[in-house]
Amino acid sequence: MKNITQSMLDAIEQELQRQVARLDQPRTKPFHEMLTYHMGWTGEGAGPLATGKRIRPLITLLSTFSSNSKENGEKSIVINWLHAKSAAAAIELIHNFSLVHDDIQDNSNLRRGRQTAWVKWGAPMAINVGDALFVIANQAVLDLVNHYPADMVVKTASILNDCCLDLTRGQFLDMSYEERNDLSIDDYWPMIGGKTSALLSACTHIGSLLGYAKEEKQEAYRLFGYHLGLAFQVQDDILGIWGDEALIGKSAASDLVEGKNSLPVLFALGKNGKFANRWKEGPITVEEVGAVSAMLEDEGGKEYAEKMSEVETQKALSYLKQANPQGEAGEELLRLANMLLTRKQ
Amino acid sequence: MKNITQSMLDAIEQELQRQVARLDQPRTKPFHEMLTYHMGWTGEGAGPLATGKRIRPLITLLSTFSSNSKENGEKSIVINWLHAKSAAAAIELIHNFSLVHDDIQDNSNLRRGRQTAWVKWGAPMAINVGDALFVIANQAVLDLVNHYPADMVVKTASILNDCCLDLTRGQFLDMSYEERNDLSIDDYWPMIGGKTSALLSACTHIGSLLGYAKEEKQEAYRLFGYHLGLAFQVQDDILGIWGDEALIGKSAASDLVEGKNSLPVLFALGKNGKFANRWKEGPITVEEVGAVSAMLEDEGGKEYAEKMSEVETQKALSYLKQANPQGEAGEELLRLANMLLTRKQ
Repeated sequence: MKNITQSMLDAIEQELQRQVARLDQPRTKPFHEMLTYHMGWTGEGAGPLATGKRIRPLITLLSTFSSNSKENGEKSIVINWLHAKSAAAAIELIHNFSLVHDDIQDNSNLRRGRQTAWVKWGAPMAINVGDALFVIANQAVLDLVNHYPADMVVKTASILNDCCLDLTRGQFLDMSYEERNDLSIDDYWPMIGGKTSALLSACTHIGSLLGYAKEEKQEAYRLFGYHLGLAFQVQDDILGIWGDEALIGKSAASDLVEGKNSLPVLFALGKNGKFANRWKEGPITVEEVGAVSAMLEDEGGKEYAEKMSEVETQKALSYLKQANPQGEAGEELLRLANMLLTRKQ
Repeated sequence: MKNITQSMLDAIEQELQRQVARLDQPRTKPFHEMLTYHMGWTGEGAGPLATGKRIRPLITLLSTFSSNSKENGEKSIVINWLHAKSAAAAIELIHNFSLVHDDIQDNSNLRRGRQTAWVKWGAPMAINVGDALFVIANQAVLDLVNHYPADMVVKTASILNDCCLDLTRGQFLDMSYEERNDLSIDDYWPMIGGKTSALLSACTHIGSLLGYAKEEKQEAYRLFGYHLGLAFQVQDDILGIWGDEALIGKSAASDLVEGKNSLPVLFALGKNGKFANRWKEGPITVEEVGAVSAMLEDEGGKEYAEKMSEVETQKALSYLKQANPQGEAGEELLRLANMLLTRKQ
């Protein structure tokens, strides 16, 4: 028998395909194919590695199912988590819309080991692919009306779009930082709050809302997702400099070479020491990666980031405990959070 | 005393500014300014010429007010058209989101006589500006919940997002046509149906829905907007080749030089005559504009387009009559439609 996680992943994939099929019409077949390629279903390299892990919609449905329990009190409603699947799909579509546009903005050639949409079809088409994914995300969320009262649909759509505005804010900050030389750690949190945490907190917030959790419980779920996002991003920043691939495998993959304004970097820039001087001189070459990452570690960038990752991890787990997720879905949610928070690559 | 049109235009501008102010926060002020620049409120050349005419939100509110009348029957609700203003703003924001992305896709330097967003801030920032306008449009439409029942808000958001998917379809077709040499008039209608008519039909459909018009009346309003859009676009195509500016003033502004797949061009391509041969040889130069437009006229491209414009105009006016718009707003809607359908530039 399939466990709950596998059942949810299957339902998510099916729902995503159903939503994207809105473009599967005679005149727009090539357009539809651009979306199915990006989603990892078609074209060269299609398959599980190309789709990504669908972590966000999975967290959404686990939040729905684990927050919905009879302990909620007399007015509780036991729901079928399948009813929330179009909202889970919407969140994954939002994530993918932002990836398609990010890849153009960052001039990235590869995504999950495959050519990016703009490399294959040009930036004008890829802008339109991203736009379509965003539109379909909104259509998917409105599909909730088949299973939920309209006021809950409006609330869900509002949470999702508020999160999307945060995404554009985070993206603006990230891009505007490229031209600045006066950054410090104060500039870090608003950026990743928008770029990473907004969407993860929307997953757990929307998930628990659709599980008919009470407001207080929704808030605990929301904050769990928010701090999970912060911890996850800080970890990503650490791995991007000191992870195996960055340091030993392919130094070109180091965030130092990419010039990324990650937390260790912003911490050290605030110190105005040797690292800051080197950083301001211009791009770090592949050959320098070992020496510059050691410099960054000496000046406390790694230690600080590890401390912050631990702080955010503890906050996330504490809010998850407060949310008190129930049943098999609750166990899977805790397992997934622990996996995300202790990953080594 | 202000007439109804001026009152509505004032309310629209105020509501648009209120919606866009979501980004007016300490860290995102420069981002907010990118949006206010594009909307025509700030920066060089700001003012009425830069904002555009706000035709779409005006048609929306006129549809709301003119469709809401006591003749609707016993269950009619007399509403304040101001309650629909956030939906009108949403439509104008959608229009502007598509303009910002179009300008990047078409490599256009000027919009309403001013530098386009991507020329001022680069394509990556401009992609994000368009995305933010789209998000705010969705937030604006959800604001309806302050004045309308949630099921009507969901319905309105669905109409708007269905229209947005049509916009991406039209944009896909338009871009994909650039590489094709086998186009005919059959390829025209699906393209402008998406690019121009979808949004205008959303204006009149949403407008009448929010005026609590019955389904049948909403359908007449919707079809009025749809055919108004088709007639408007065909006219635009005619003016783009034989209008004063295209032909006499600045030939560089001719759609022939731009290589635009307009209706007269697609009609003549289907004839496979002299024009088609010249068109397939490559870009028309400014010096050739007079001769090539004469060739196109000889082969019946102008006459055909004028006939189709007349057909669509009559359909639009016939549906408007069927919609039977009431009161001062009804008179203004008819006046506006006539103005749009008889413009000479």
